Amino acid sequence: MPLKIALAQTNFLVGNIAANVENLIAAAIYARDELQAGLIVFPELSIIGYPAEDLLLRADFIAAANNAVYHLADHVTGIALVVGFPELDGDKLYNSAVVLHQGAILARYRKQALPNYGVFDEQRYFVPGNDSCVFEFNGTFIGLTICEDVWREGIIEATREAGAEIILTLNASPFNAGKIHQREAVICRQVKAAGIPLVYVNQVGGQDELIFDGASFVADAQGEIVFRAVEFAEQTSVVEFDNGQLQTSICAPLYSPIACVYQALVLGIKDYVRKNGFDGALLGLSGGIDSALVLAVAVDALGADKVEAVLMPSRYTQDISITDAELEADALGVRRHTISIEPAVDAFTGMLADVFAGTRKDTTEENIQARCRGVILMAMSNKQGKLLLTTGNKSEMSVGYATLYGDMAGGFAPIKDVPKLLVYQLANYRNAISPVIPERVITRAPSAELAPDQKDEDSLPPYEVLDPILERYVELDQSAEDIIAAGFRPEDVARAVSLVDRNEYKRRQSPPGIKISSRAFGRDRRYPITSGYRGGDASTLFRTPS
Amino acid sequence: MPLKIALAQTNFLVGNIAANVENLIAAAIYARDELQAGLIVFPELSIIGYPAEDLLLRADFIAAANNAVYHLADHVTGIALVVGFPELDGDKLYNSAVVLHQGAILARYRKQALPNYGVFDEQRYFVPGNDSCVFEFNGTFIGLTICEDVWREGIIEATREAGAEIILTLNASPFNAGKIHQREAVICRQVKAAGIPLVYVNQVGGQDELIFDGASFVADAQGEIVFRAVEFAEQTSVVEFDNGQLQTSICAPLYSPIACVYQALVLGIKDYVRKNGFDGALLGLSGGIDSALVLAVAVDALGADKVEAVLMPSRYTQDISITDAELEADALGVRRHTISIEPAVDAFTGMLADVFAGTRKDTTEENIQARCRGVILMAMSNKQGKLLLTTGNKSEMSVGYATLYGDMAGGFAPIKDVPKLLVYQLANYRNAISPVIPERVITRAPSAELAPDQKDEDSLPPYEVLDPILERYVELDQSAEDIIAAGFRPEDVARAVSLVDRNEYKRRQSPPGIKISSRAFGRDRRYPITSGYRGGDASTLFRTPS
Repeated sequence: MPLKIALAQTNFLVGNIAANVENLIAAAIYARDELQAGLIVFPELSIIGYPAEDLLLRADFIAAANNAVYHLADHVTGIALVVGFPELDGDKLYNSAVVLHQGAILARYRKQALPNYGVFDEQRYFVPGNDSCVFEFNGTFIGLTICEDVWREGIIEATREAGAEIILTLNASPFNAGKIHQREAVICRQVKAAGIPLVYVNQVGGQDELIFDGASFVADAQGEIVFRAVEFAEQTSVVEFDNGQLQTSICAPLYSPIACVYQALVLGIKDYVRKNGFDGALLGLSGGIDSALVLAVAVDALGADKVEAVLMPSRYTQDISITDAELEADALGVRRHTISIEPAVDAFTGMLADVFAGTRKDTTEENIQARCRGVILMAMSNKQGKLLLTTGNKSEMSVGYATLYGDMAGGFAPIKDVPKLLVYQLANYRNAISPVIPERVITRAPSAELAPDQKDEDSLPPYEVLDPILERYVELDQSAEDIIAAGFRPEDVARAVSLVDRNEYKRRQSPPGIKISSRAFGRDRRYPITSGYRGGDASTLFRTPS
Repeated sequence: MPLKIALAQTNFLVGNIAANVENLIAAAIYARDELQAGLIVFPELSIIGYPAEDLLLRADFIAAANNAVYHLADHVTGIALVVGFPELDGDKLYNSAVVLHQGAILARYRKQALPNYGVFDEQRYFVPGNDSCVFEFNGTFIGLTICEDVWREGIIEATREAGAEIILTLNASPFNAGKIHQREAVICRQVKAAGIPLVYVNQVGGQDELIFDGASFVADAQGEIVFRAVEFAEQTSVVEFDNGQLQTSICAPLYSPIACVYQALVLGIKDYVRKNGFDGALLGLSGGIDSALVLAVAVDALGADKVEAVLMPSRYTQDISITDAELEADALGVRRHTISIEPAVDAFTGMLADVFAGTRKDTTEENIQARCRGVILMAMSNKQGKLLLTTGNKSEMSVGYATLYGDMAGGFAPIKDVPKLLVYQLANYRNAISPVIPERVITRAPSAELAPDQKDEDSLPPYEVLDPILERYVELDQSAEDIIAAGFRPEDVARAVSLVDRNEYKRRQSPPGIKISSRAFGRDRRYPITSGYRGGDASTLFRTPS
């Protein structure tokens, strides 16, 4: 008997149970009435959004989520809903999925594989289930799984052995560059091995540091993708099975790898602003590549009328920096302001003259400039209710080439997980769509402009050297020895590694930003600030005690 | 046969394997030669310190830790060492303890109970062991356990059943107020039920947000504490067993509850400064109670010559605030500076005049003042290499009554987990030892002094009302309904809860501070910034869909 299954790729506000339930109901009614679906599948923990973090420890929150399931069951008929929720049973909490049909719970599944690595803390909250779940619906035997289950060996297979003819998977699978291909490859390999079609429904949207990219899909029993929803947008679509065979095949084209990252940044800003109720965004525009890119992304996310740019020149700002910043703002049509920081810098210099008497200039004086900019931008943010975006990239965050409470001041750091070389690629990508960043901004040597004729390369290895070292050290957890063995100069490696280690305290106070790499700073990389580990080969680590 | 067991209550620098191993060797040689101990017990994961967080994901770090165990085994003879380390076996990592004796591994135990709640993430790193471990040493059968094992029902009992006559427990048990009594009560109850003596060795010292309080102890088979080491300090001591009976009984007296918190704060500042290599500390001194307390603690931790105080008056600063701040600094003998913030405030007011034209004064102007102070203090910190201490308390951190990059600017926030009412108690406690905080500072109505005649109570419920509400909401995860049902006014509860929810973004960028409560902000309470949960009774949460 033919079965139409709707895939509800939904964007939730974490914790807003009432709004989420309304969305679920609206999507179900649409799927029933407009798509003639018999069953609709929602993402993992769809009642509450993902990840709800320590809200899951609150009894009132869990009670509300469990009640919401009964509410849902009572309010939609004529279509079966597969929804995720934190199921309370006695004192145990499960990451569960239920099938609601005609006011009753037709089936219930408890997630077996609870990820507790990277950004995931599911064993902090949930107890794992132990059993496969297969239910009959209109003559078809359907198996349920949740996210990590289909990455782990054996669960798809066990569900098929329990009698399933089709497997549904509810997901909240966060994006990083390359993740879509990885996800499809890993899951389709298991699907092919088990020889059973699978319907994969993913959440979409930004939630603090995470982007959920959607890209829900259907794989046939041979492990081929026969349906794919769009990336980075909500979509409720339908597929029709007949005897386990998909009747239609429509695959949304995939974005290029660089376009994926760009779209992730756009969605990240858009959802952080929208879900947190800001009236737009503002940022400091320096004439450099980083702020130019953040401006472009912000305008693509929010519209030019919702973004303001602030130029804050000092005595060290080159004229071409001002010119280029003005060109950027004007090309995108955003309102711009120019406020020299000199009066504040002069004031602080005078105020500190006594306590600094007899000392030499150092980075202190550079930091004062950056912090004067931070005060200006935060004042404008406070007054206008606009989100202040910081413009630091991952290379800078890694080595601490940034001023706490200065250029690091802000509510959201869109490119904090984007290495400098990728910043250039993204700028070129955006310019290929329409020219918004002057070519000179891309080709100039990068400078913080906090001292005369300053260049990033005065303090750091060239980014062509630095970025690959950082990728190995931060993302791949390689040791300095490993990285040197791969062909990098020992002095560059030692400098980069030491800077990364020493600057954890800055990162701990940085605003949240968008994870686009396999290992972002934040929840994804949990390092102690106080740490005596400085690497070193084990054989040379110890002095022989006397 | 008599057996002398040494308890090595040690303060480690997390990650510094070489230094930790040297400490272990020195303590072992001291225990062997001076205390005539046959066996010495170190804390949990003593080779690396606790918690090493994501250092545990690095292959080079794990290899170094495992090699260090062999190094240790080779370098100390004549005494058995019981040390903790992250044991790599194939691709599995265990939280293990080994007994090293005469160059060989005499026994090995893998922790069975891996805590993954509160500040603990052990399931992120480790696989649990499944077996008890009992070894014979000089005719005594000794069982091994690690920390959480002895909190969980059944593991002490199973170890006794496996033949143990004495149980050793290696621990890294962090402090919070009341923890010492709770720890001894829970463990002694199990010891009594199992009828077997237990030697409990705890780490001591500060590590980022955690304080390990030491207070190692020995319980006899009746569950009575028959030996206790000091709190909040290193100590290597020895106890002698003969046929399972302790031959000596020396219990260090316990600090009073308020003294415990004070000592935790002192140790926290001391270790953060020492382990991170700062040349002392500085702070802004306002004449209010919070900065007065932080100054006293800092001086008790570091000595007066290592602490500097900065007075930064504005037009809103009362004369008595300046007088009292001067009295505080002088009473403690610290160097003080006075820098008016007016020139910088005037500069920013002028610089922002155009963009703020036609707007009304609001908290923006207050924040500018606080941020000018932040710039001054950070400049002095940068120039001198002194750690900037923030002075905000937990009540303020909870409701966001603080300025990001203003009074929240700094490297360490000693009292961020101390509610305002406890700040007063701590001030009175410290004054009872010697008068260092003027009585007027304790009795004056608290004020941020950012606007004319401002009082905290203009914006917040009185702390006598606010603090108990916050304790219920933040520490106990009670709902607003629960708190109102306990007798608090609905409007006070609604206001407090809403402020806590809305200010997660500020807390996310706050410096680390010392956990002294059962639920601190930071690793201990992981809330989303973007959250739509606003509580509400489940029955009223949903509008009936049309």
